[in-house]
Amino acid sequence: MPFLSETPDITTKNPLMALVIGNTMLSTIPGVSGAGPSPEKTLLTPNLDAELVATGAITSVPARPNTPTGCPTPASITRSMMELTGRAPLFINAGLVHQPAVPCLDVYGSPGGDPRRGDAVPLAGDLFRRGEMVGRLLSQCSDLLVLGECVPGGTTTALAVLRALGYEASVSSSYVENPVTLKEEICREVLARIEAAGVHEPLDILRLAGDPMMAVAAGIASTYGGRVLLAGGTQMLAVAAVLKELGHEPPHLATTVYVRDDPSATFARTVGEVGTVAYYVDPNFAHLGHVGLARYCIGEVKEGMGAGGAMVLAHLMGFTPDEIARTVFDFVSAYS
Amino acid sequence: MPFLSETPDITTKNPLMALVIGNTMLSTIPGVSGAGPSPEKTLLTPNLDAELVATGAITSVPARPNTPTGCPTPASITRSMMELTGRAPLFINAGLVHQPAVPCLDVYGSPGGDPRRGDAVPLAGDLFRRGEMVGRLLSQCSDLLVLGECVPGGTTTALAVLRALGYEASVSSSYVENPVTLKEEICREVLARIEAAGVHEPLDILRLAGDPMMAVAAGIASTYGGRVLLAGGTQMLAVAAVLKELGHEPPHLATTVYVRDDPSATFARTVGEVGTVAYYVDPNFAHLGHVGLARYCIGEVKEGMGAGGAMVLAHLMGFTPDEIARTVFDFVSAYS
Repeated sequence: MPFLSETPDITTKNPLMALVIGNTMLSTIPGVSGAGPSPEKTLLTPNLDAELVATGAITSVPARPNTPTGCPTPASITRSMMELTGRAPLFINAGLVHQPAVPCLDVYGSPGGDPRRGDAVPLAGDLFRRGEMVGRLLSQCSDLLVLGECVPGGTTTALAVLRALGYEASVSSSYVENPVTLKEEICREVLARIEAAGVHEPLDILRLAGDPMMAVAAGIASTYGGRVLLAGGTQMLAVAAVLKELGHEPPHLATTVYVRDDPSATFARTVGEVGTVAYYVDPNFAHLGHVGLARYCIGEVKEGMGAGGAMVLAHLMGFTPDEIARTVFDFVSAYS
Repeated sequence: MPFLSETPDITTKNPLMALVIGNTMLSTIPGVSGAGPSPEKTLLTPNLDAELVATGAITSVPARPNTPTGCPTPASITRSMMELTGRAPLFINAGLVHQPAVPCLDVYGSPGGDPRRGDAVPLAGDLFRRGEMVGRLLSQCSDLLVLGECVPGGTTTALAVLRALGYEASVSSSYVENPVTLKEEICREVLARIEAAGVHEPLDILRLAGDPMMAVAAGIASTYGGRVLLAGGTQMLAVAAVLKELGHEPPHLATTVYVRDDPSATFARTVGEVGTVAYYVDPNFAHLGHVGLARYCIGEVKEGMGAGGAMVLAHLMGFTPDEIARTVFDFVSAYS
């Protein structure tokens, strides 16, 4: 298998890896998110991921960067790519329950609410406009923006937003067994609310059904002057779909083959329907000799914290597939 | 008079204007700070300044960007320079009482306490280290960092820090009549606490007597890879003195002639004692035909929100003294 499904026509002198982090209260519903040791503790995952990517270790709480099932977190992959490339990542706080332990460009949003109970992101329009300000700011200091995210429970908001925008999408999950029934149930309730409200504009859909990450990421991508690569799976695909609906050229995506190959999701088909391109990276985790990484290949974790995009970035900067896989292996072997 | 006291040996392709904003509870003591319509309301001034510099207007509260005595705020000068140069400024939230209305790179600090009553910045060391992370991040996206501040009451913390570091400094003020007696009284109490604690290390001095801006700005300047220009008067001079004491080459400063010419302060002498250089900009406000700006020349306001450094930056980017003064005049004339 090739390392990249196709080579992006991107050259960059000054790339920036930025990660939008936020919460949706959907992740506290048992069974929705596997990104944490308990539903309540999924809320802290973006903070711990940011700490790991920024500093190389989690010291603010006693925790190891493994998933509850013992896989290295995708943040570990992103961190190892930051070490390999020597780039410092930027974190963008779109709305978190817990205060981060590392500096973040903060738009002073709030965690997303449960979209079955009321507007999920009451100030989605304001967050989009603050994202626009961030996009202008980042334009003057980089020529390529690799924009990832960490929002536990965010594939469920992405499903609702994609459906509300008219796509027949199914979405990916960090679970091996995608909790499709639960997500579909939530989605049905949310779509009924959207229909009752007679809402069609993309920022209104984000207000009712999205999460703060989506509004901020869409704002950033809409004003950024260089090339944008959305680093992620279905959640970033929802951002691309929102941008298209707002009249923008939807940015290309970069993610792992594990997202593309998820049989319960329709990622590649929906990418085509949105009218954009996704680059799929295959880091060949099956053959590295690390049990936790190998489990990515049977459908665990798959993606997160811009891991796929971080590997694509390293490749664009001239590092070989072997250097990339070896760096991930060395980093995760040091603690697991 | 020349526009600049001397021409900095700086060339820049990709400058960044960054403004560290924060609070010290000293500004709520009646008579300490003129940067707000009441002692309590000085706490909101950094937020309103940031909003003005970012967007060109204050809309979050009903307020005009004038000082209580009717002068245009220095933030107006900084904003007009951002419009002239087309650069987007970055705000760094070091510790504020009120949540900002514009995106900030947030280090998740807290407002500084009254240094007479206890440690002013209990986590000064942590804030310094988060500043170091910010400095590394900004290094990869700019070659010149013009670093200003807005901390009402901050000349009093600066006085205490400079004295504790062994300088016989007096400091400037935004008042025409510098409230020297009150500042000296506060300073005496603070220095007695520092002596009783037997503290000599610069970060310990910041912990006891400084404000969050100083710790963050010193951290940023200590790791920034390009050229740093500290944009401000006595407050940034205190940051330079801290950096020197930490073993760093103290960065050069850029400020207005109104700071240098303040008869109650000893700015130029202390700059020499710290072993650095200050560039003084004379925007010739006396002859523009604007009463509020002319009052800068008789000692009101003087500096703030990196105004002097913003004008120096515009000059370094090739704008003439006349274009600079005219842009300030046009901007402030539009609302006052």
